[in-house]
Amino acid sequence: MSQTEFDAATLAARLATLGDSARDAGGVLARLALSEQDRVGRDLLVDWLREAGLEVAVDAIGNIFGIWRGDLDAAPLMLGSHIDSVVDAGVYDGCYGVLAGLGVIEVLQRDGFEPECPITVAAFTNEEGNRYAPDMMGSLVHAGGLDLDAALATVGTDGTILGEELARIGYAGDMAPGTLRPRAFLELHIEQGPVLEHDGLRIGAVENLQGISWQELSIRGVANHAGTTPTRLRRDAGLAAARITTFLRDELATPTPSTVATVGSLKLHPDVINVIPSRATLTVDLRDPDAGTFAAVEDRLAEFIERLAAREGVEIDSRRLARFDPVSFDPALVAKIEAAAGARGYPCRRMTSGAGHDAQMLARVCPAAMIFVPSRDGISHNPREHTDVDDLAAGATVLLDVVRALASGSAN
Amino acid sequence: MSQTEFDAATLAARLATLGDSARDAGGVLARLALSEQDRVGRDLLVDWLREAGLEVAVDAIGNIFGIWRGDLDAAPLMLGSHIDSVVDAGVYDGCYGVLAGLGVIEVLQRDGFEPECPITVAAFTNEEGNRYAPDMMGSLVHAGGLDLDAALATVGTDGTILGEELARIGYAGDMAPGTLRPRAFLELHIEQGPVLEHDGLRIGAVENLQGISWQELSIRGVANHAGTTPTRLRRDAGLAAARITTFLRDELATPTPSTVATVGSLKLHPDVINVIPSRATLTVDLRDPDAGTFAAVEDRLAEFIERLAAREGVEIDSRRLARFDPVSFDPALVAKIEAAAGARGYPCRRMTSGAGHDAQMLARVCPAAMIFVPSRDGISHNPREHTDVDDLAAGATVLLDVVRALASGSAN
Repeated sequence: MSQTEFDAATLAARLATLGDSARDAGGVLARLALSEQDRVGRDLLVDWLREAGLEVAVDAIGNIFGIWRGDLDAAPLMLGSHIDSVVDAGVYDGCYGVLAGLGVIEVLQRDGFEPECPITVAAFTNEEGNRYAPDMMGSLVHAGGLDLDAALATVGTDGTILGEELARIGYAGDMAPGTLRPRAFLELHIEQGPVLEHDGLRIGAVENLQGISWQELSIRGVANHAGTTPTRLRRDAGLAAARITTFLRDELATPTPSTVATVGSLKLHPDVINVIPSRATLTVDLRDPDAGTFAAVEDRLAEFIERLAAREGVEIDSRRLARFDPVSFDPALVAKIEAAAGARGYPCRRMTSGAGHDAQMLARVCPAAMIFVPSRDGISHNPREHTDVDDLAAGATVLLDVVRALASGSAN
Repeated sequence: MSQTEFDAATLAARLATLGDSARDAGGVLARLALSEQDRVGRDLLVDWLREAGLEVAVDAIGNIFGIWRGDLDAAPLMLGSHIDSVVDAGVYDGCYGVLAGLGVIEVLQRDGFEPECPITVAAFTNEEGNRYAPDMMGSLVHAGGLDLDAALATVGTDGTILGEELARIGYAGDMAPGTLRPRAFLELHIEQGPVLEHDGLRIGAVENLQGISWQELSIRGVANHAGTTPTRLRRDAGLAAARITTFLRDELATPTPSTVATVGSLKLHPDVINVIPSRATLTVDLRDPDAGTFAAVEDRLAEFIERLAAREGVEIDSRRLARFDPVSFDPALVAKIEAAAGARGYPCRRMTSGAGHDAQMLARVCPAAMIFVPSRDGISHNPREHTDVDDLAAGATVLLDVVRALASGSAN
């Protein structure tokens, strides 16, 4: 059997077309979940799936599936990601995994490959979560982690009801979520971080995904005159916020290299030069791929906050915004990705995903893993998001080779 | 000679009347320099000065003087402060020192006291500096530290010209600034800090006034994804801001108890939960009463910022917003204040003024000192600004006793 190479030119052209379909007059790309732009992008995708001869199925949360050798009773090998985006996005995040999955099927079709199971490409609804919370919603509903009715009743940041918007754009499908229970799930994605580029690598074999803890801390001290209040009498909410920030770096992230911790948002009140801040509101983003370490660093932060409040004479309240446990991907799938990259001569390493992905939801119901390709300067969620076409091709080729192995019977 | 006690009830009534004259329909007190409210307040003050039989003089920057036993050629003993206010102010800041000065003269008049020099009560223009910069402007011009024409040409935050507003409200006087060169200057003022209340004292004999350094620091790092960027590759502007904040407390203010340091304002960019801050803008308010220590802590901060920038891989620019050297008040005057408080049985301590005051400008041209009374909870520049009437009376009584001593010849 001949082995056709992956068609990177078509992939790049489709990424550009899909991206352009969601740009406004100023060129800003935004394909918020279930927006008019999302409808346009979904229509484009469905056209491409049908042109490839795939059977298109849409479930009740709007997840789109393109099924090759459709047999709804057989567990498919599933490839996919999402096509919704943030505001002012790049063209790669999510779309790359969906369109490369389609490209992989097209290569196998041209080769006359006879898969021993259906191969399905999936585009999950509302991965970004910018309009409707939580993020990764379509894959979460698919995996049974969120009730369909609850998801459909979600009120968006713009006051819209998710279910109404889904129906409005024509993607409230008939299929019950979770009908397609994969035998395995593979998600190809841009890294959205600087590790691969920094280390001169082309492929990341993603073996796990960090646990994510988001909390908002509200600190209440006492506002007083910056000149007339002696240090010993101060109850400085801003100082307490600074101590949390340096604790996260010096006492958690630095001694525990797997942990990353970020204070991304911080606001002081009254926020004037000569008044000791009476209030500080800050966010803490804490991540670790190991469940035990993750829980331990969360505990250490909580203990520190309690001691700090007493020491600085401030009150600190914590409000949890989100929490996802770490996810371990399927070791056998990760090994296949690594082996495929090695066979192609692509420099590769095992790595941890720092961001959340649909694959973590699919991992609840089937073996799952991810393939990463480099992001230039580590940038994503930004028009400067970029991956070289050679790297796009390398990632898709690894996906192709793993799919060939998994669907040819002998290797599965 | 009988020794009439200070009339605290009249003082309290005048403070309330003057305060109410500047309230809007919602009860918010604002007497910004040279505003319509300032005109109303000045008219009230001038009426009270004239009712007490004082000769009223106004200089070209609008400073108002009420002269008892007017003799423009003799160096007066001067008492005073200012009556302009911030927005949403209390009734005491500044007004207390002016109206208590008038009250002191009224007591001496009733006693039939024969001063050996003129006694003058002064209300200096634009001490707060909220509408026109710099603050303490009237006393600075009076002391020769700022050219009159430059002061009159000042453009306000509302686009107005100071000289035009001064003329509009009818307080562009004929007298050349500095004409009245005092033999000594005494300013009675609320503490605007918590020290007296916290330490259970009634009187502060203010022996010096802190040097004040205000700067704005702009930190530029690199924005990156909070989940996917390893700690070693981060250039976190927010972390650098936190390190400056904790350095100020732990390495400057704590080991040097005379130094106070405050980060009152801090803004992050882009200020979202899962993005490492690319920019941080913070203010540093640094104060110390000793010129040598003041310069040393400024130098240590500058050195730290340079090391920090290199260590964290960020750029840090500093912009100076204001700087005043420390001021030492006249030791003999301070000793007289302390002795007067002691003789009345008022618990008293020598202390440093953390805020700027007109007395620091007068100290350039004559012996000067200040008397502080407690501020409840240390609060000022706020409607909750409060000093008990007994403390108002105690401060005015100390002022009265010192004036008696200074103006009776024997003690001067």
